Amino acid sequence: MSQTAVNALLERGRTLTTPALRAAVDRLAPPMNTVAAYHFGWIDAHGQESASDGGKAVRPALALLSAEAAGAAPETGVPGAVAVELVHNFSLLHDDLMDGDEQRRHRDTVWKVHGPAQAILVGDALFAISHEVLLEVGGEGAARAARRLAVASRKLIDGQAQDISFEHREFVSVAECLEMEGNKTGALLACAASIGAVLGGADDTTADALERYGHHLGLAFQAVDDLLGIWGDPAATGKQTWSDLRQRKKSLPVAAAVAADGGAARQLTALLTADAKKSEEEFADFDEAEFAARAALIEEAGGRQWTADEARRQHDTALRALDGLGMPDTVREQLVDLADFIVIREK
Amino acid sequence: MSQTAVNALLERGRTLTTPALRAAVDRLAPPMNTVAAYHFGWIDAHGQESASDGGKAVRPALALLSAEAAGAAPETGVPGAVAVELVHNFSLLHDDLMDGDEQRRHRDTVWKVHGPAQAILVGDALFAISHEVLLEVGGEGAARAARRLAVASRKLIDGQAQDISFEHREFVSVAECLEMEGNKTGALLACAASIGAVLGGADDTTADALERYGHHLGLAFQAVDDLLGIWGDPAATGKQTWSDLRQRKKSLPVAAAVAADGGAARQLTALLTADAKKSEEEFADFDEAEFAARAALIEEAGGRQWTADEARRQHDTALRALDGLGMPDTVREQLVDLADFIVIREK
Repeated sequence: MSQTAVNALLERGRTLTTPALRAAVDRLAPPMNTVAAYHFGWIDAHGQESASDGGKAVRPALALLSAEAAGAAPETGVPGAVAVELVHNFSLLHDDLMDGDEQRRHRDTVWKVHGPAQAILVGDALFAISHEVLLEVGGEGAARAARRLAVASRKLIDGQAQDISFEHREFVSVAECLEMEGNKTGALLACAASIGAVLGGADDTTADALERYGHHLGLAFQAVDDLLGIWGDPAATGKQTWSDLRQRKKSLPVAAAVAADGGAARQLTALLTADAKKSEEEFADFDEAEFAARAALIEEAGGRQWTADEARRQHDTALRALDGLGMPDTVREQLVDLADFIVIREK
Repeated sequence: MSQTAVNALLERGRTLTTPALRAAVDRLAPPMNTVAAYHFGWIDAHGQESASDGGKAVRPALALLSAEAAGAAPETGVPGAVAVELVHNFSLLHDDLMDGDEQRRHRDTVWKVHGPAQAILVGDALFAISHEVLLEVGGEGAARAARRLAVASRKLIDGQAQDISFEHREFVSVAECLEMEGNKTGALLACAASIGAVLGGADDTTADALERYGHHLGLAFQAVDDLLGIWGDPAATGKQTWSDLRQRKKSLPVAAAVAADGGAARQLTALLTADAKKSEEEFADFDEAEFAARAALIEEAGGRQWTADEARRQHDTALRALDGLGMPDTVREQLVDLADFIVIREK
């Protein structure tokens, strides 16, 4: 696969989607429009124009490809790309507040800069305009797209609820973790992968196959995210070292390591059981070496390798969903490129 | 007008809507379904069945009447009634958290019982399923209804943003207050009043007229709410005495009193200017007599009478919107009854 091709694809997604996204955000009453512009990285905390990292923008790129997969122009997918991006950012705004995360994309989060009420309100507003933007397109395609978006949004929220409930538990099984990640990450990527096609008039069989591609792509994406959450380079990810371990996240590598046989798995289980009894303050006092020891045990027990293998399995399952779907060869190649990119990325 | 007729109308709305509302809420992943059931008053804080006051349910009653106004069966309006009720309750969950309100309908609010994260999550989930429920109906009517719901939801959020921004200001004009209330209360009542008709196949002219009826009904409703927020009987409203004054709300009676001429208006303005400089703690130390004195000045300056007159004006404008619309006489009478009820209610 070609990194240049993927960069061009992501760039096209941003270029075609951003003007419509900005126009949508401009509908919000002040000060919500300003707060949203800060969240998207269009302005800094002082209201000055900026060109911050607005994220990878995998979803918009996918929505445009999705339209092309149905034989439509990429522009047909734009309202879908905007709607999905609005829902994605609604969830980031609320999740950062619920999780108490202070940094995103190397900048202070909205609740940290503008307060919790603005994070709630602006998230709500982005969610509301996602449906407005989509339904304004009119016609049966838009209504079908909006229905899929509503279902995906509910699953996304279910996933966040499951993720939060896991924080209060000592251990989570691999199956539970995969279910949560399928909701939290898979559902909206599945929607992005099918929404353009639905707007382009694709039938349900085609849309469902593209949804399966997106769902497994999402699970591959999240498996890689879970790896980066422990072993990622802070300079690339913008997160702290051992970020997920600091937050006691029950991510895939942890769940897989705990489920393994052998001495490392037993040692890890004993450590995590003891950790669960510690207060936030005691946990915050841990030094680098203590997190490094846990990461080493997870790796020794096979959790790192299992998760890397799982990312590859989900990648392959995603591509198999495209078998038998008629679409231009160039579009199929780009869907493959995007899947390849997602499993080899470093941030 | 007949109180019995209105009670029967509200009761019919509850009876036809509640089973569908419960089925919708059952879609949420645990523990969100339980938290939502608590919010709606179907269970108590310990998870036991209860039959608490679930609110007046004006919106569902209106959505069913709206279907009948378009010549359809009341049942046609049920998905619209459910969707509007879900959006209304999403906004209550988030507003109570943002405003720090600890009591609603004589019970502890969700964030107080289940924590802020659940209040955010469950609000989000209700918002998501509102569109799901509506778009599942299928067809052009459902898509048009969903589009109107999305616009109303955005306005509702705009209104809450305006309301919050007013808290940081010393004074708000009557026009600003009316704009905020038109968004916060008018938009969703306007949607309730038209959504049944849209689902019943009404054209845009009919739907727009019903929306205007609902919008002005909302403004009448809010004017009465503003009166009850200062002079309401705590036993009836379930709120503290002088509730809105304790929260330093810039409601209509305050805005109208400040805008008036004369000694009382000047005295009130001086007091409120001084109040604005006080901290939350100093304000919390105020005794009953101090709030009573402010309420007396608002009344003397004419703010109470102006607001009562405004409620009546909005009521009359609402009814004029129905002129020229063809609908069964019994439906028209019920729309009039409902408007009458809204301006004379005591809670």
